[in-house]
Amino acid sequence: MLTVNAYASPSATEPLVPTTIERRDVGPHDVLIEIKFAGICHSDIHTVRGDWGPQSYPLVPGHEIAGIVAEIGSAVTKHAVGDRVGVGCMVNSCGECVNCQAGEEQYCLSGNTGTYGAVDRDGTITQGGYSTHVVVTEDFVVTIPEGIELDVAAPLLCAGITTYSPLHHWGAGPGKKVAVVGLGGLGHMAVKIAHAMGAEVTVLSQSLKKQEDGLRLGADHYYATSDENTFTELAGSFDLIINTVSASIDISSYLQLLALDGALVNVGAPAEPLPVNAFALIGGRRSFAGSMIGGIRETQEMLNFCAEHGLGAEIEVIPAGKINDAYERVLASDVRYRFVIDTATLN
Amino acid sequence: MLTVNAYASPSATEPLVPTTIERRDVGPHDVLIEIKFAGICHSDIHTVRGDWGPQSYPLVPGHEIAGIVAEIGSAVTKHAVGDRVGVGCMVNSCGECVNCQAGEEQYCLSGNTGTYGAVDRDGTITQGGYSTHVVVTEDFVVTIPEGIELDVAAPLLCAGITTYSPLHHWGAGPGKKVAVVGLGGLGHMAVKIAHAMGAEVTVLSQSLKKQEDGLRLGADHYYATSDENTFTELAGSFDLIINTVSASIDISSYLQLLALDGALVNVGAPAEPLPVNAFALIGGRRSFAGSMIGGIRETQEMLNFCAEHGLGAEIEVIPAGKINDAYERVLASDVRYRFVIDTATLN
Repeated sequence: MLTVNAYASPSATEPLVPTTIERRDVGPHDVLIEIKFAGICHSDIHTVRGDWGPQSYPLVPGHEIAGIVAEIGSAVTKHAVGDRVGVGCMVNSCGECVNCQAGEEQYCLSGNTGTYGAVDRDGTITQGGYSTHVVVTEDFVVTIPEGIELDVAAPLLCAGITTYSPLHHWGAGPGKKVAVVGLGGLGHMAVKIAHAMGAEVTVLSQSLKKQEDGLRLGADHYYATSDENTFTELAGSFDLIINTVSASIDISSYLQLLALDGALVNVGAPAEPLPVNAFALIGGRRSFAGSMIGGIRETQEMLNFCAEHGLGAEIEVIPAGKINDAYERVLASDVRYRFVIDTATLN
Repeated sequence: MLTVNAYASPSATEPLVPTTIERRDVGPHDVLIEIKFAGICHSDIHTVRGDWGPQSYPLVPGHEIAGIVAEIGSAVTKHAVGDRVGVGCMVNSCGECVNCQAGEEQYCLSGNTGTYGAVDRDGTITQGGYSTHVVVTEDFVVTIPEGIELDVAAPLLCAGITTYSPLHHWGAGPGKKVAVVGLGGLGHMAVKIAHAMGAEVTVLSQSLKKQEDGLRLGADHYYATSDENTFTELAGSFDLIINTVSASIDISSYLQLLALDGALVNVGAPAEPLPVNAFALIGGRRSFAGSMIGGIRETQEMLNFCAEHGLGAEIEVIPAGKINDAYERVLASDVRYRFVIDTATLN
């Protein structure tokens, strides 16, 4: 067992505090990673605060992990000491179900093992990336290619793959019109990736506050959804809409923005059901769909794609002592576009 | 102008009555059809009763038309006098928009022209198939192949294409598991067609009342949705669910029956929005989609497919005098599975 520094949430109602946690011994198939950077995802906040159900505390969040391999197990073949690697939202799955066999481990029929707050196969609770080290089975460790700095790579492990996967699955590319709803942590990566894929990209944001940023990141157009004309002007125009907003939006209005056979894909979800007007679907053979992160093979593909196109997240690097402040700023949408913890500050 | 016999609804609240209506002179691109049979679609009842908005009366419903070509215009090339032909839910479209150009006239961006109750290009209101004759532009007339009797062919023009199109679009075939929700006019055709396409077919009906029928029509399995175990037992099992029920069903429960990348496709819709749990979509990259009839080219393809596989609707032929009784029986779900009017009784 390895005792390592971390930042943990002691309960659903208290701020995170510095602590130490135990990491398991490196097994034959395990990789010990010295974490360099860990992104702060909005879902970290929801999870530690119990918004999505009760948790086991203390809980170390963080599923956007970038670091260097410090040690490998005797049977490891995919990674070597010194490699630049990443870990995303999951650290294990059954490996045997039809979805795992298809490389879609995120949809494991037994449920994938989340990077933190999940019951691991040894019965312990997984602890995430706000820490100096983590031990992960090699199959759930991906390579961060040269050409992406580790700090801007960290958010790719969740925000990057969560947007890359549906863009790829629904065929974003040249000749396709893609809209991105919300320009936050996920949205800004959706814009960068869709643009790099060759699609014509439109941001649909509540206001025009971030318009300049949106266009700089690769958007071709930028519209305010608070302006009702937006919905008239853009009716029937998109092949794909990626909705990165977890709050309830009027799905039926957005469906009307889709062309024939278009899809509106949610990558987040509010707790309450969303009212959908079935006529909006029927009238253009439209789909309302959902997508959850991506498989390990696809995560590697996404990292290679980002390296090839020079894409990383737009980040603000913070020391661990600023995590609680960062949480408040995330909740106030006061971040452009991702906080990344420099884990050297945990020592 | 040709004066022909018909059965019309005089208002939203009165029964249908025998009457005469005018059909336009046969233009260069027109086909005059001597109607032999006209199906009664549930939507006829909603429309004439004003459930879907105000109508112009008197109104002759009917968009499941099978007959014989009696006369053709000077420029007609697709049909000849004596041909067995059909007309479905639309009789025109702009022909120029991207959807029309793609052969998806049902999604015409200017709106297709409905077979009855729509404003035709000459400003008159279209009148449907409960009549002895109809004049339709040749592009919206399809050929009924030898091998399908005209009476069982009539319902294919709406119930057939409405189910064939999504089954084909979403890839029903060997190795695919397809569920059909509701075993009525649309549902019974969905079962026959999905079975003929080679899919493994399951009927999801409120009760087991029609189980024997369902299996005879081609279903491999039959489940009652009133039994809660159905939703546990079938969780995650279908690639495609065709929902033929227009009443509100619990969409989120049905979404849970889909496997990875599965689609639940509504071919009808209740007036009220349907609550959809986005987590049910995200958890398996599932889609909630809609589909509306089919294009003219696809309607011909469907008829050819039905002829090749010996498929027709299960019908009860009635004289025109029984139309009002039939309406009540449709509303009471007391029909297996489609009423078809013998238009010879209009003379």
